[in-house]
Amino acid sequence: MSLFDEIVQPTLLLDEAAARANIARAAGKAKRLGLRFRPHFKTHQSAEMGEWFRPEGVKAITASSLEMAEYFAAAGWKDITIAFPANVRQIPQMDALAERVSLGLLAESVETVEALEKGLQHGADLWIKVDVGGHRTGVDWTQVEQAAAVARAARAGRHLRLRGLLTHAGHTYAERGGAAVRQVYDESVARILSVRQALAGLGLGDLEISVGDTPSVSLVEDLGPVNEIRPGNFVLYDAMQLAQIEACRAEDVAAALACPVVALHPQRSEAVIYGGAIHLSKDTFQYGEARAFGLVCLPEGERWGAPLAGAYVRGLSQEHGILRMDAEDLSRLRVGDVVCILPAHSCLTVQVMRRYRTLDGRWVDTLNH
Amino acid sequence: MSLFDEIVQPTLLLDEAAARANIARAAGKAKRLGLRFRPHFKTHQSAEMGEWFRPEGVKAITASSLEMAEYFAAAGWKDITIAFPANVRQIPQMDALAERVSLGLLAESVETVEALEKGLQHGADLWIKVDVGGHRTGVDWTQVEQAAAVARAARAGRHLRLRGLLTHAGHTYAERGGAAVRQVYDESVARILSVRQALAGLGLGDLEISVGDTPSVSLVEDLGPVNEIRPGNFVLYDAMQLAQIEACRAEDVAAALACPVVALHPQRSEAVIYGGAIHLSKDTFQYGEARAFGLVCLPEGERWGAPLAGAYVRGLSQEHGILRMDAEDLSRLRVGDVVCILPAHSCLTVQVMRRYRTLDGRWVDTLNH
Repeated sequence: MSLFDEIVQPTLLLDEAAARANIARAAGKAKRLGLRFRPHFKTHQSAEMGEWFRPEGVKAITASSLEMAEYFAAAGWKDITIAFPANVRQIPQMDALAERVSLGLLAESVETVEALEKGLQHGADLWIKVDVGGHRTGVDWTQVEQAAAVARAARAGRHLRLRGLLTHAGHTYAERGGAAVRQVYDESVARILSVRQALAGLGLGDLEISVGDTPSVSLVEDLGPVNEIRPGNFVLYDAMQLAQIEACRAEDVAAALACPVVALHPQRSEAVIYGGAIHLSKDTFQYGEARAFGLVCLPEGERWGAPLAGAYVRGLSQEHGILRMDAEDLSRLRVGDVVCILPAHSCLTVQVMRRYRTLDGRWVDTLNH
Repeated sequence: MSLFDEIVQPTLLLDEAAARANIARAAGKAKRLGLRFRPHFKTHQSAEMGEWFRPEGVKAITASSLEMAEYFAAAGWKDITIAFPANVRQIPQMDALAERVSLGLLAESVETVEALEKGLQHGADLWIKVDVGGHRTGVDWTQVEQAAAVARAARAGRHLRLRGLLTHAGHTYAERGGAAVRQVYDESVARILSVRQALAGLGLGDLEISVGDTPSVSLVEDLGPVNEIRPGNFVLYDAMQLAQIEACRAEDVAAALACPVVALHPQRSEAVIYGGAIHLSKDTFQYGEARAFGLVCLPEGERWGAPLAGAYVRGLSQEHGILRMDAEDLSRLRVGDVVCILPAHSCLTVQVMRRYRTLDGRWVDTLNH
C-alpha cells in the first residue's frame, strides 16, 4: 500500500532526507565560515528532528518561548537561547531552567533587566535585542543611549552575563533573490556593528553579534563579522522561501500537506480540498499578482512532485482550501484524489498540525502532540 | 489573587455568562421563528460548552469534520450534520458514525453520492450543498441541472435519504450592518428557494432548506421560509463580528486572549505582547483603513473592558503581537502588564489555543486538548 493510499485526512508529510540535507548544508556553511550555528527549533518543534542536528556537531539551539526551551531541555539540549523579549511574568520558570541549562535571554529595556536581576537566582546570558530595520521589536539601532542603558544595567547585575547584541533581520522576507537579500543583510550587519562600536566607545566592549534568518543564511555567501547564526525555517523551507524569496529549490522543501480533493469547479477553474486554515494556518505569500496560502503539487511515486505552474491555494476557511489551477491540470483531478500543498509558512503549519508523517509512514511528534 | 495576577503566558479567557447569553438569544430567536436550531460547534469545539446548549432545547448540531462529529457523538449528541463536502476517503468512518447517530452528509456531485451509496452500510441524510454567491463550494444556484443530477442520484440510492438543500452565505462577512447583511441574506434565500422550486418542477420535491451564518442570524429579524439555521460563531463572537460587520455589541464578545506586555515602543506608538500567530491565528478583519489581527482591551476587575478606541494588533509573527495604540493609552502600559486581545476570528483562535480559562479560573477543554 502506498503512502498516498493511506491518506484519509490532511496529513503533514515530512521528507526526512530533504530535511537532513538542509541541516547538513546550513551547518556546513556555518562551519566553513567559522560561525557558531545555533539553529532555531521553532520551525520543526520536534525533539526527534532535533536529534538530526547532533551528527552535524550542533550543541546550541534557539527557542521562541520558555515552553519550547523546557521541551528541548527535557530532550537533552544544554545551551538554549530564548529569542523573544524576556517575559517578566515567567521569571521563576526561567530561573528553574537556568539551573539546568546554559540559558540565554533577551532584553531591550532597563525595566526588564532589573526585573530579571531581581527574580533570578541562577546565572543566565543576556543578549540585547536590536532592531536593525524590521520594526518588530528591539532597541532601534540608532538609539545607542538606550542600548547603553540596558548594557549598563546588565553589567551592574549579579546574575546576568551580558553576552552581546542580537537581531533578526525579518525584513529579508520582503526581498526576492540573492542580490536583494544580501543588500538587506549587509545593511543589517552594518547597523548592528555600528551599535557595537558605539557601545565600545562608551566602555561597553566585548560584545558578540548574533544574527540569522533563513533567506540570508541560504542566499548570502559571506555572512560577515558576526559570531553566531540562528536560522530556523531552512530545515523545512516552504512556498514563501521557494516562490517569493527564491531562497531554496523545490526539492529542498521538506514538508507538504497531503489533502483529499472534495469538490471540483471546472467552470471557475478551481478545486476544493479538505485542508483549511486549521491545517495550513492563514499565512500567505506573494505569488505573481496574488496572495497565496500554498502551492499545489501532485503525488509522484512516494513523494510529491514539483509545484504545478500557476496553481495555488487562493482561499482558506476553517476546513476548506480553494485551489486555483489551469484547466488542463484541473481536468486530471478527481474527487477523492490527494494533492500535496507546500504551505506558505511551514513554522505555522507545523504548529497547527502538531505532528508529521514521514514518507515511509512513521509519525514524528512535536511539542504540541 | 485575581484572574489577571495568574496570567503568565497567552491564555484564552472565556466569559461563560456572555457565551450562555449568546446561546439563549440565538436559540430564542429560532424558537420564535419556528426554525430548527442546529448550531455549528466548530467555533467553541468543546464538549463542556456543548452542554450549555441543552437547557435551550438544542438536540441537533453541526460539525465541520468527521473528527469533530465523532468527538461530539462521544459527548452524547445524536443528530449531527457534517457541513463539509463529504470526503470520500473517510466513508468507512462515516459509516461507523452513522450506525450510532443520525448523521447528515453533504454532497455536490454525482460522483460523491455514488461513492457514498457504494460505501455506506447504514442510512444517512444527504444535503445538497448550494453555492448562493459565496463561491467557496457547492452547486452554483444557477446550475439547476447539476443539482437535479445529484438529487436523482441520491433518491436512487438505498442508504442516503435526500433531505434538502443547504448553503452557507459566507459573503455576509463582507458586509457591514443590518441593512447590508439583510440584503445579502434575502438574496441568498431567494436563490436557494429558486433551486428548490426548479427541482420541484422536475419532480424532485419535499426538500428542506438549511442556512445559517452568524451575521444573518444576529442581524436579520425575519429569516424567511427556511427550515433550519446553523450559525456557529455567535457563541463567542469576535473582533470581526464587532468592528467590521457590527453583528454584536462589545459585551457579547465572550472570548479574549490575555497576553503579557514584553516591550514598549513609544517612538512609534506601539507595544509588543507575548501573543502571536500561534495563539491568535493569522486571520484579519478590516479596521478603518487597516487590516487588523485583533482589538486591544485592558483588564477591568475580573473581566476585560471595552476595546480601546483606535488600538489594534497590526502585526503578528510566531510569538509576537505588535499593538498600535494612541500615545496616551500606551503611556499607561508597563512591561509585565496584561492586555486582552479580542481575536479577529474566534474559531481559529480556539483551534490554536485548544482550551479556555473561565473568568473564575476553571479550565475548559476542546477536542484538541
